Order: sequence, then structure tokens, then C-alpha cells
Amino acid sequence: MTPHPAQFNELIRLAIQEDLATGYDLSSLVLPHDQISKFGIFSRQNGILAGVFLIPHILSMVDPKLNYEILIKDGQNLKHGNLIASISGPLASVLLVERTCLNFLSHLSGVASLTAQFVAQVENTKTRIVDTRKTLPGFRALQKYAVRVGGGFNHRFGLHDMVLIKDNHWLYIGSLKKAVEEIRSMLGHAVKIEVEADSLDQFREALEARVDAVLLDNMSLNDIRTAVSENAGTVILEASGGITLENVRDYALAGVDIISIGKITHSAPALDFGLDEI
Amino acid sequence: MTPHPAQFNELIRLAIQEDLATGYDLSSLVLPHDQISKFGIFSRQNGILAGVFLIPHILSMVDPKLNYEILIKDGQNLKHGNLIASISGPLASVLLVERTCLNFLSHLSGVASLTAQFVAQVENTKTRIVDTRKTLPGFRALQKYAVRVGGGFNHRFGLHDMVLIKDNHWLYIGSLKKAVEEIRSMLGHAVKIEVEADSLDQFREALEARVDAVLLDNMSLNDIRTAVSENAGTVILEASGGITLENVRDYALAGVDIISIGKITHSAPALDFGLDEI
Amino acid sequence: MTPHPAQFNELIRLAIQEDLATGYDLSSLVLPHDQISKFGIFSRQNGILAGVFLIPHILSMVDPKLNYEILIKDGQNLKHGNLIASISGPLASVLLVERTCLNFLSHLSGVASLTAQFVAQVENTKTRIVDTRKTLPGFRALQKYAVRVGGGFNHRFGLHDMVLIKDNHWLYIGSLKKAVEEIRSMLGHAVKIEVEADSLDQFREALEARVDAVLLDNMSLNDIRTAVSENAGTVILEASGGITLENVRDYALAGVDIISIGKITHSAPALDFGLDEI
Amino acid sequence: MTPHPAQFNELIRLAIQEDLATGYDLSSLVLPHDQISKFGIFSRQNGILAGVFLIPHILSMVDPKLNYEILIKDGQNLKHGNLIASISGPLASVLLVERTCLNFLSHLSGVASLTAQFVAQVENTKTRIVDTRKTLPGFRALQKYAVRVGGGFNHRFGLHDMVLIKDNHWLYIGSLKKAVEEIRSMLGHAVKIEVEADSLDQFREALEARVDAVLLDNMSLNDIRTAVSENAGTVILEASGGITLENVRDYALAGVDIISIGKITHSAPALDFGLDEI
Amino acid sequence: MTPHPAQFNELIRLAIQEDLATGYDLSSLVLPHDQISKFGIFSRQNGILAGVFLIPHILSMVDPKLNYEILIKDGQNLKHGNLIASISGPLASVLLVERTCLNFLSHLSGVASLTAQFVAQVENTKTRIVDTRKTLPGFRALQKYAVRVGGGFNHRFGLHDMVLIKDNHWLYIGSLKKAVEEIRSMLGHAVKIEVEADSLDQFREALEARVDAVLLDNMSLNDIRTAVSENAGTVILEASGGITLENVRDYALAGVDIISIGKITHSAPALDFGLDEI
Amino acid sequence: MTPHPAQFNELIRLAIQEDLATGYDLSSLVLPHDQISKFGIFSRQNGILAGVFLIPHILSMVDPKLNYEILIKDGQNLKHGNLIASISGPLASVLLVERTCLNFLSHLSGVASLTAQFVAQVENTKTRIVDTRKTLPGFRALQKYAVRVGGGFNHRFGLHDMVLIKDNHWLYIGSLKKAVEEIRSMLGHAVKIEVEADSLDQFREALEARVDAVLLDNMSLNDIRTAVSENAGTVILEASGGITLENVRDYALAGVDIISIGKITHSAPALDFGLDEI
Repeated sequence: MTPHPAQFNELIRLAIQEDLATGYDLSSLVLPHDQISKFGIFSRQNGILAGVFLIPHILSMVDPKLNYEILIKDGQNLKHGNLIASISGPLASVLLVERTCLNFLSHLSGVASLTAQFVAQVENTKTRIVDTRKTLPGFRALQKYAVRVGGGFNHRFGLHDMVLIKDNHWLYIGSLKKAVEEIRSMLGHAVKIEVEADSLDQFREALEARVDAVLLDNMSLNDIRTAVSENAGTVILEASGGITLENVRDYALAGVDIISIGKITHSAPALDFGLDEI
Repeated sequence: MTPHPAQFNELIRLAIQEDLATGYDLSSLVLPHDQISKFGIFSRQNGILAGVFLIPHILSMVDPKLNYEILIKDGQNLKHGNLIASISGPLASVLLVERTCLNFLSHLSGVASLTAQFVAQVENTKTRIVDTRKTLPGFRALQKYAVRVGGGFNHRFGLHDMVLIKDNHWLYIGSLKKAVEEIRSMLGHAVKIEVEADSLDQFREALEARVDAVLLDNMSLNDIRTAVSENAGTVILEASGGITLENVRDYALAGVDIISIGKITHSAPALDFGLDEI
Repeated sequence: MTPHPAQFNELIRLAIQEDLATGYDLSSLVLPHDQISKFGIFSRQNGILAGVFLIPHILSMVDPKLNYEILIKDGQNLKHGNLIASISGPLASVLLVERTCLNFLSHLSGVASLTAQFVAQVENTKTRIVDTRKTLPGFRALQKYAVRVGGGFNHRFGLHDMVLIKDNHWLYIGSLKKAVEEIRSMLGHAVKIEVEADSLDQFREALEARVDAVLLDNMSLNDIRTAVSENAGTVILEASGGITLENVRDYALAGVDIISIGKITHSAPALDFGLDEI
Repeated sequence: MTPHPAQFNELIRLAIQEDLATGYDLSSLVLPHDQISKFGIFSRQNGILAGVFLIPHILSMVDPKLNYEILIKDGQNLKHGNLIASISGPLASVLLVERTCLNFLSHLSGVASLTAQFVAQVENTKTRIVDTRKTLPGFRALQKYAVRVGGGFNHRFGLHDMVLIKDNHWLYIGSLKKAVEEIRSMLGHAVKIEVEADSLDQFREALEARVDAVLLDNMSLNDIRTAVSENAGTVILEASGGITLENVRDYALAGVDIISIGKITHSAPALDFGLDEI
Repeated sequence: MTPHPAQFNELIRLAIQEDLATGYDLSSLVLPHDQISKFGIFSRQNGILAGVFLIPHILSMVDPKLNYEILIKDGQNLKHGNLIASISGPLASVLLVERTCLNFLSHLSGVASLTAQFVAQVENTKTRIVDTRKTLPGFRALQKYAVRVGGGFNHRFGLHDMVLIKDNHWLYIGSLKKAVEEIRSMLGHAVKIEVEADSLDQFREALEARVDAVLLDNMSLNDIRTAVSENAGTVILEASGGITLENVRDYALAGVDIISIGKITHSAPALDFGLDEI
Repeated sequence: MTPHPAQFNELIRLAIQEDLATGYDLSSLVLPHDQISKFGIFSRQNGILAGVFLIPHILSMVDPKLNYEILIKDGQNLKHGNLIASISGPLASVLLVERTCLNFLSHLSGVASLTAQFVAQVENTKTRIVDTRKTLPGFRALQKYAVRVGGGFNHRFGLHDMVLIKDNHWLYIGSLKKAVEEIRSMLGHAVKIEVEADSLDQFREALEARVDAVLLDNMSLNDIRTAVSENAGTVILEASGGITLENVRDYALAGVDIISIGKITHSAPALDFGLDEI
């Protein structure tokens, strides 16, 4: 399921505004701007498509006279040269939405494609690849959607939908156990509690506090294996910190349930797309 | 000069909203949230700093009781472990702005740092590295600022501030020369005209049309050298297409005035920063 | 902890705008509008105070020259005649914010006070009173805050932070168990799953599906007691439907963990406050 | 006549946003979300319908593919079980708008229904029931519309469309008469002047000042009868303060033209509605 | 009394945005932008000042480090060369607000000055000059304020705060009298009714319908004198249509209470102001 | 080419809001508001039409059931009595958009018509009439469009798309030449540089600095002729300051390339339009 596109109205409006400012598409001044034309969006690289669900919404925000056909859906594999979607309508309007559409597609498909590479590395393990809150400002819901499109799963969306207790949280309270107890007494039943552990000792303290999940942060593979073994399936175990395409499978094989990767949202290279008349 | 930070209110508001949604920072429920604390933003990688100019504005939007000190300015070199800025104020407010501040810094410093790598490659040539319109939706002005911070220069900001005539523009008019003439007759004197050329023939046609600049798109180094020589300084020459850190110096040595690189804005990996109590 | 007041900027702006439209406070035309005056907000009814945390923010949005002192905090008991807060500044600005401040206080304190009445009824049981999504459009986070101020707890905030499977959900999938399994395979680890059961059979099916919580909707007290006994603490049990101040204690004594009450947000009568010069 | 629905875009947007935050309807993840379904909005209580005029606008803001049929119009009597409107379209979109639609209907019909009860009490008198500015922030125009739907009339909409002089206004000027004269000399001819009187003396002073209306605030029934008799139809007389369903008819029989009731907007209990597949 | 400046945030934001778009003040790139400078706003024409009340608000929206001193207040006479206000602060911020401040001042002072010329023409009569709804989109409240500053009065602000029945209104109902009766039965007591009359017959019909005011539209001076005489002070009489600085006194001497002039808002020439370093 | 109408959503929303505030069109309460009616927009003066391109967009923002036909396009000559466009749909919606549509048309056609008068004065010279940044806040893009419709050309749109160096710029740097050099070293290749000269000496200094254009500000016709002669076509020459309909041809004949006139945007009298049932 895709997010509701109207949620991104503000971001789309910003994108259109920065391409137009308060003026015009000066390069189109002499074109026959009302002439009905048809263009195709083509992939120029292999990867996973994400973001095409936004195209109809972007078009309708700019000019209701623009039509489209979506030929490849989000989540499908792209080969160089695939026709993703066609856009037809007044020439000036097509040229006006071109860059906004391509920029959204490039970025989101980049996130999905990098996620898919991490997911492929942990194939045939029970481990899931998940995202973080290290997202581009304004893009969190879109990037988290692209992560799912690429085969990953979503961690919490923000500060509001899950508790994640780090050491600078519990230091203020005195002990991890006390922090968990106090926070649980104030939370509604809809919210889960995860605790960040930097050592086996902290992990054991978290286990005793009966939290829902423990994040093993920057721990050695050996320590992680010990934690997995001591945990014996009691709570969800998450690994993070210094995990790359090269070593991610080692962490999966160590037995954690989820591995969180900031890189898939903050550093995914764009996928290349182009618009050509058809 | 930095852009006016109030221009980014909407993007900052989106960032805060996606971290808070309509709720709270659940993990801070049990903290002594009004306790005055002091935290530092530290670099965890080498690179060029960009985006620190936004910090005071983000803080003031979230909680006017937050204070700060900026220790390193945009454009300076970072070493792993540098203290960039300190933030002090009510604990809950500091934790609330943490991720938004870090996410802006990480991304913009990533753009500046990658730009600086390209700029370093063309050192001691007259060639400038410039950006494109392949930017993240909503981030154009910020990314273009980061490009300047990294030593690059800005191409046009949008469709409204320069004419860039591509082949699908002039095909509608008949000839490049006619397209240029017609568009010039409608343009104010404040606007420059650049033409995209895919071949030496198109380049020569553009020269004759007396435009301000020619974009040599995806042309071979040999053709580019010919164009430079025939041009003899008449118009500004720009190269683009398939240019990487490895081959960028070859293009610079071929004598073009500017080289435009989409990658510095659409695919710059983030720089790592962290927040620690001090 | 209070929500972040800047989240309510839009609602506050609407409130001020509807009192001013595009004009003035006509009744203040002849007043010495710049004269510094001091007014107090007084309670005119007994109850629980909620919403006073918004006052500083409302004042700062209307006129930074307005000052205040908060004398009673959210969550405290009010007697008729208590001085809640003082506001001082230019007379015209005080009169302009008067109704907006009082209207927020009246409504939110009404919600907190009604919640507190329900909470008092279940005293010395382990049962918690929780809210629903039957909130006033635009007021959800504020009303849910007022519920907490009144001693209640929060259910999910929206469609995005917890799964609540109702029968029209699983009918599309075939069986409850299948629906739960499918949805779990797509959810991140941060999200809990609750199922609505209308009968003991559905409750048992939900238990088998190993969900986090079961909502016993409109079930008889007898059936609820059976469910509590069969559940034996395995999942969280919630009761809802036709629960009033008169019968809420019976449901609590039947042993459910939480009781959700729409009335505390959609039908709470306002508490009366007034502004007088002091 | 209904208000223009686009005026409420911001409130509707807030309502949808708080149900979705930046995520999805998680419970709908496994549904066949594009499947065309048809649901009905049913009343679950007797009362007066208000707010159905918003439904088409809410649907169009969320998903233009949603269709509807309105079967009962605002102002009509509802019996438990009436089908108010049908909504058809993609399943996921229907579930997404459900709570927003029901929450608006419940609240506004609650206001109309309580108003209608007051109006019924003063049947066959010349007295009108009117609202006040004690409305929910952001809901003033909607609540005032619901008051009219319930048979009541509207007092001023805000500080900008009528003068209402209270004692803390004229104290600054010296005398009521002087205050009225000064304000009249500054007002355009489109604006009426009402004065609040707490005693017969103040009422007489207001009469002499030749205002358009006098608000008899918290005065005894006896004093009100005296005022009505002395007024002899000269100005409009309004009663307010401590008026309930039980005693409202006494005030009407005392002969005032209008009775203003804060309760109909700030404390109206919601009317219950539900959405079921049909 | 001035309007509340925060009401104009959107218009001010638009003004700043159109001067900056998504970029910078390019001309200031090489200036010492943080250098504290002091500039004065000077009048370059005689007239009436209006709009200076907005300056502090504009400055605070752009840069809280900008300071100001207001030396001449709205409503005062200006001579060429007067120092209106001083602005000091970072050079780049001063240059950035310059044009926005001057453009507001120029337009609003133009409106006030033209109004004052009309007001001067009707000196020593009882007639008031009032505005219309023929205002610049987005500027209504500001222009109506400038009209008051220039000595004029305000007609209704919009469609919502007074009834003005024109012939195409009553044609739908059957007769003017019936239209007035029906509308009165639906209106709250806060609203006045004015009727537009194109002939003496229509004027007499309106008088019988006991409205609050009659607008004598495009009627001859003779007919207007007859209407004034027949009216004998019963209702407010307004004249409009083809009234200029040259003939306005004739209409005033004919005895109408108010004369409405579209020109003072839709066609007032700007007053010239400049910013110079001091 | 017209600007993209969605750019003006905010201004249109402000215009509708100020006519409606949070209420209704009270005068339409008793009309058969859903009755389908047809009205025409007629010119009541001769001039040049501008702004009709906004009509479809305004209608769609208010009520999608409104239809229209555009009979005269922007840029055409109007005679008194011409039918510009027809609007049909629900009566209440037509009356609601009437004033907003007419106010936009009146102002923009006023700008186009005054521009056309200046353009007519310089007929058969090579000189162009251009606008300035002395525009109404929020109207810059619309007014600059109207200038083009009237036969004029656009100067820069804001501070962001061209450099215009005035004396208070270069005084900070030391010399004009140094200021130009420094700024050029920081500017991208897309931006032109113009310099304001108050004397022949400054003009000559600017010529030496090899800028793109020189603004001869408030210089005598004699000095301007000297500058034109010395310039010999090297840079674009602009004249401004004290130029009126009466003397504009003298400046054109003196040989400048462009003449900028603030009056065409800040002081254009409105053109009169009306709406009548047809």
C-alpha cells in the first residue's frame, strides 16, 4: 500500500515553486505551449522503481489537463531503457513538471534500490533490514515507503510512536530498570519499548526489565552472538553501527532479528531517469 | 553569504512534524524535561561543514529558550571529533531538535564535501564546477548553497532565471537560430540564453546565434577540444554528461569554462555527526 | 510532559482569525489600547485544569509585549474562584486574546474533568481509562493530552501508530488468523496489533492469533468475565461500548485492563472560566 | 444556505493529518485497498442532522475517486438507524475518511440538536435562541451554522462585526454614554452597537445612549420584566447568564427578543453515527 | 487603532518571497553583510502617512536583529524629505526588507492621501467619505485601514458583515419588500440591511421596507435631493456612481450621509518614499 | 505565455477569504442559491485586457460546478461594453466570485493599459519600456505579466535573478570596479550584472568594468545622449527617474535601450468592469 499522496502536497509545492519561483519557464516562451504532446519517462539505469505513485498527484497539482499512463509499478525491477510512464497534455505543462517528477523518482528509486541490495545480502536468513530516523528532512514518510518497496521494513516513524531508551535517558533516572518502569506506567498500551544497549551487561539489564526489543549498538559480532543465545527468542534483537553491504550477512547469521541501516536513507545514490517525446 | 534562513521554515516545520507527528517524544516522558542541559554537535567524519547557519533558526522555531554557540562555520574543514556547536536549554527541547539538526547538517555537509572533491580535481585550471537542477525536491536553494560552500558555483536556480534551449525546444520552432531570435525578442535584458549542443554542428549553429553560453552535452573530449578552440573565448562553454571524479580533470584541461555535475546534489553521501552531552 | 505548543499554531491562528476576521476589535476602538493593564483568568467551576500550558504560546503569537504568570498548572484541582494565571500588557491585546484563551481552557479542562470522574470510579482497580479516535477534528493531540491530565491513558493516536483489526477488515481476507498473519508479515517491529472481538468465539480466535491486545466490543459483563478468565493475563483486554459513569466500575471489576470511553473527548461539557481586571 | 466548504480546508486537513500523521492506515495494509466498496453513514441516535454538507468536500480532498449520495439533508430530523449518506470508492480511501466524516457529523449534529431543544422550549414566543463567542477554537463558523440548522440565530461572529460594550470598556472612558458617542463617531454605518447592562440603571443609561441592542446580563427575571416594559420595543433586548433548558421559557415569557446560550456551542454532547458496508 | 499586524503575515511573506525567490540578494554578495548599518525611510512627496505600523512587524519577520525607531505615525501629514523611521541592523537584512517596506508604505499612503483629498472636499458638511469592496485582492483590510487614516470611514468589509440588496437579488424573490422581509427573518440581530436603489421609486419602496440604509446608485443630483428630503433622516442615505474630486462636494451638499468612492482603493497613485543611509 | 495560475493560490485565497471572512454571503441568504444562472463580465472602459487567464482558476478554487467561456483574451483591446467572459453555475457561487474576479481584472488591465500608453509613446524607436521592483506586495509576478501584456518588458524579478549595483553597494567595497570584480568572482555564469550610474563619470567607470548593463539614473537628457554616444552599443543602457508619458519619447530618442517606469505598476488606475446577468 502506498502512502496517501496528498500528504506530500507541501513538498511537491516546494519543488514546483523552486523551479518556477515567481516567474515562468522562460525557455518555453516561444514554444507552442498549448500543443498537446506526449512524453515518456524512461529508466537509464537498472534498479528498483519507487515513487511512481506520486506522478498522478504531481500532475493534478500542476495542470488537471495533464494525462498519464503508468506502465511499471513501484517495486518492480527496472532495466536501462524501460518506459515507466507516459505523460500527455499541453507542452508547457509537461516541461514544467518534468524535473519535479524525475527528481522524486530518482531519489526514491535510489533508496529502494540500495535497500534491495542489503536485503539481497541477508537472503535466506530470518533477519530483516530496517531504516532509521536518519532521513532527509521532509522526506521521512517517502523514504520509509521506498525502504518497504525495496524489501526492507520500517523502524519507528518518529519520537511519537515508540519508546527508544538510550543511556542518556536512563542516566537521568538512575537505572535502566527504573527508567523502563516509570515510562511504562505513563505509556498507553499501544506503544512498544526498545532499549539501546552498548554492552552485554546493558543487554542483560534490558532483558530483565522485560522490554519489547533491544538495540545492540556497535557491539562485536561475538557479543551479539552471546546476546542472541542468552535471549533465546525472548525479545526482538536489533543490530546497528558500522554495518555495510560487505559485513551485513555476518550480522544476519549471528541471529539478530533486525538490522538497521542509516545509509539506505541518508546516502542512497540517485537512479537515473529521463523524459523523451514519444 | 548564507541564504535567508526563514526561507526554509516550511522544510524545517515538515522535519519537526515528522519526528513529532501529533504526539510527544515518548522516550522523554520520564526525563526531567525542564532541566537545563548542554550538548555538543560533533563531527564523526572528515569533510566540509555546511548547514550550521540553519541551527539558530531551527532552535528558535522549536523553543526560544534554547541557546547555542557556533564554533565552526560553514565552509571550514572538519576532522573527526570536532565540536561544531553547543546547544543548551531544557533537556526535552534539546532531544526534540537533535535529529532535525543532525539530518540537515549531514546532508548539506555531504553535498559540500563531494563538491569540494570535484573542485580539488580541477585545481589550477580556470574551470568551475557547477550544479544542475537535479536536486532533491524542496532542497534546491539549500543544496545550491552547499555547492558554493564546497567551492562550486551555481547554475540557474530554476526555469525562471535563465533560458536553456534544448533540442526538443527548437524542433518546435524550426531551427536553433530562429528559436534564439524569437525568444530574445520576448525576453527582458536581465536574462541570459544558453543552448544545449549535442554535436559540433549544433555548437557552431549556437555560436552563430550569438547566445551567452553553450552546453556541450555528452560530447567526446576531442569534440570538446575542437569547440574550445573554435570558440576562442566568445561564449561560455559548459560540459556535462558522464563526468566523474576520475575524468573531470580531463574535461577541465580540455578548456571548458564550467563543468556541471548532477551527482553533487542528487547522490552525495551524508557526513556523520552526533550529539553528546558536554 | 506537555505536547510541543508550536504544533497547535494552525488551530490557534484559526481561533484568532475567526475572532478578528480581516478587521479589528471594533469594541476597543475608543479604549486607550496601548495602556498597560493586568487581568486574571479565574475559574468559575470546580474541576481539573488543562490547557494552561498553551497560554504563553497564544500570547506570544498575538503580541510579544504580553506578559503572564501561571499560578496553577495543568492537572491541579480547581475551586470556583481560583486565579489561574495573570496576563498583562497593552489593553487591546489582552482583550483580543481573551476569548481564544478562555475557549481553549474551557474545553480542555472539560475533557480532563470528565476523564477524572471516570478515573475516580475505577479507583483501586488495575483498570485504566483510555480515550478513542472519536475526537474533535483538529483537537486530537490536545484532547488526548487533556485525558492524560485527567488521569486517563491514551489509546492509539491515529491509523498510523497501531493496528486495530475490525471484522470488516478480516472479512476481506478470509479469517482473523490469516489477517493477523499477513499484516504481521508486513509490519515493522515497532507496531502493536489489537483485534476487535464481538463475541467470545472471536476473542478466542484472536488469542490464538497471538495478538497484543483484544478489544471486547459491546460484550456482556458475563462474557467479559469469561474472557478475562480464559485470557489469564496473556494479552491486554480492552472493554468498550455503552460504558457510563454509572456502570464503569462493574467493567473494571470484571477485570479488563483498559476501558475506552468516547464520551470523554466528544461530549465533555466545558468548564467555565472568566477574565477580570486585577 | 450552507457556508462555503472550502473555508474549512485547514480544519479538514488537520483532521486527516492527525489520523494519518506521516504514515499509513496500518490496519488496511493487507486489505484489497483498491477494491470498490460501498458504505453507508447511519445515525445511531435521534436528533437533528448538521454537517452533511461537508461530506462531499472532505471526500474530494482525500480522494477524487470517492463518490457519494446524500440522502438526508442538514436540518432534517434523524431517527436511530437512518441512512444519511452512502460513500463508495476504493476501500482504503473510504476507511481513511470514515473517522473524519463521523467526527464532524457527530459534533455538528450535537450542536444542532441541543439548539433545537432550546428552540422547542420557547415555541410560540417571539424570542429567538442565539449563540455566543464561546465556541471551540477553529469551529466558530461551523458551530454557528449548526445553531442555525437547529433553529437558532447567530449573534456576532467575532470582535470585528458588531460592537459589544462591556463595563470594562466604558470604565476606561468615563461613562457609558461617552463611550457610545465616541465609538459611534469612529464606526462605519454598517456596524451595530450593543451594550451589556448588569442592572436596571445601566440598562436605562444604555437606552438613553440610543444603542441598537442591550444585553441584560445575569439580571433577575423581575428586573428583566421591568426592562422589557420600560423599553417598549425601542431597542433589541437580549438576556444571558445562567439560562438552562429548564428556565429558558421563563426568560422568553418575560419578553426579551433574544436569549444567548453558550452551552449550545461549548457543551453540546455528540450525536452518534456509524459507518457500515452496504 | 491599527489592525493586528500578524493578520498580514501571508501578504508580507509573499512580498519577501517574490523579492528573494529561492535564492539570495545577489547584489549583496560582496557587501560586509553582517556590518551594523543605519538607514532612514524618507518621504519624497507631500501626503498622509499610512502603513508605518507594519514596519516593526515586517522587520521582525525577516530578522529579529533589526531595530527601528518610528518618528512619524500613521495619519500625520508628510512633507517631502521627512524622516519617517530609522532602521538599523545587519546591512544585508536592511537591504532585504527595503523594497517590501517601501512598497507597503507607498501604496497605503497613496490610499490615505487620496482619501484625504476627498474628505477635504466635503469639509464642513455632515457627509462622510466611505470605501467600497473594489479593493486589491489581499489588501482589503489594509486599504480600509488606510481609508480611515485618511479621514474616511469604512463600508462593509465583505459579503459577511452586512446585507446589501441589489436588484438582481430581489428580482429572484419577486419584490424588494418581500426580499427584505425574508432576509430579515433569517438574519441575526447583529446585521444591518442596506438596499441599492436606482430610482426614486425604488428608494421609496426601500423606505417602506424599513431598511437601515439606502444606496442611491447613479442617481441625478436632483433625484438625490428629493430622496434626502423625503427621507427626512429616517434611514442612512449613501450616494455612489461617477463621483469625482470635482463633483463630490455637490453630492455632499445634496445632503446624503455617506458617499462611497471605489477610486480611493482601486486607483490611488503611490506616494514616493526612499531609503538612505544615515 | 501566461504564468502558472496555481502560483497565485495564496493571493486568490486571501481575496475570497476577505470577502467571506468566516461567514456567508448574507445578501444571498434568501436567493435560490442552487439555481443555475449565467452572467457576463463586461468592460466599462476602453483599454487592454489583462488577467482573464486567472478566471478559470479562481472559479475552480471556489466551486468546481462553475463553468465559463472566455471570449476575449489577455492582450486584446477593449471597448466599453465588450463581453469578456461568461460565467454560469449556481447563483450563490457566481455572486461569491464576482468581486474577486472583477478586482483582479480591474487592476491588471489597469497596469496593461498604462503600460501600453507608454509603449505607444516610444513607437518606432528601438527603446523598450520595462518595469521595476516598485510593485504591490504579493502582486509582482502578476503585475510583471500585465506589463508584458501591455507591450512592455520585464526587468529583474527580484534580488535573486540579476545583480544591480548601486552606490551604497560599492561604497562599502571601495570602488565600482573592485565591487564588480569581486561580485563576478562569486556569481554563477547565469547571472547578469547591471550598475547604477548617477553621472557620466560613474557611467564611464561602469563601462570599464565591463558590466552587462548600466542604469543612467536621474541623468539629464544631454548626459544621456553623451553616454549613448560613448557607449556605442557596448552595453545595454537603461534610463530611469522622473520619466512621464509626456517626456518618455525624448528619452527614447536619446537612444537608450530601455526605460524603466515604476508608475506602471505602483500607480496604474484600475479599468472598470461589471458583472451582469445574461
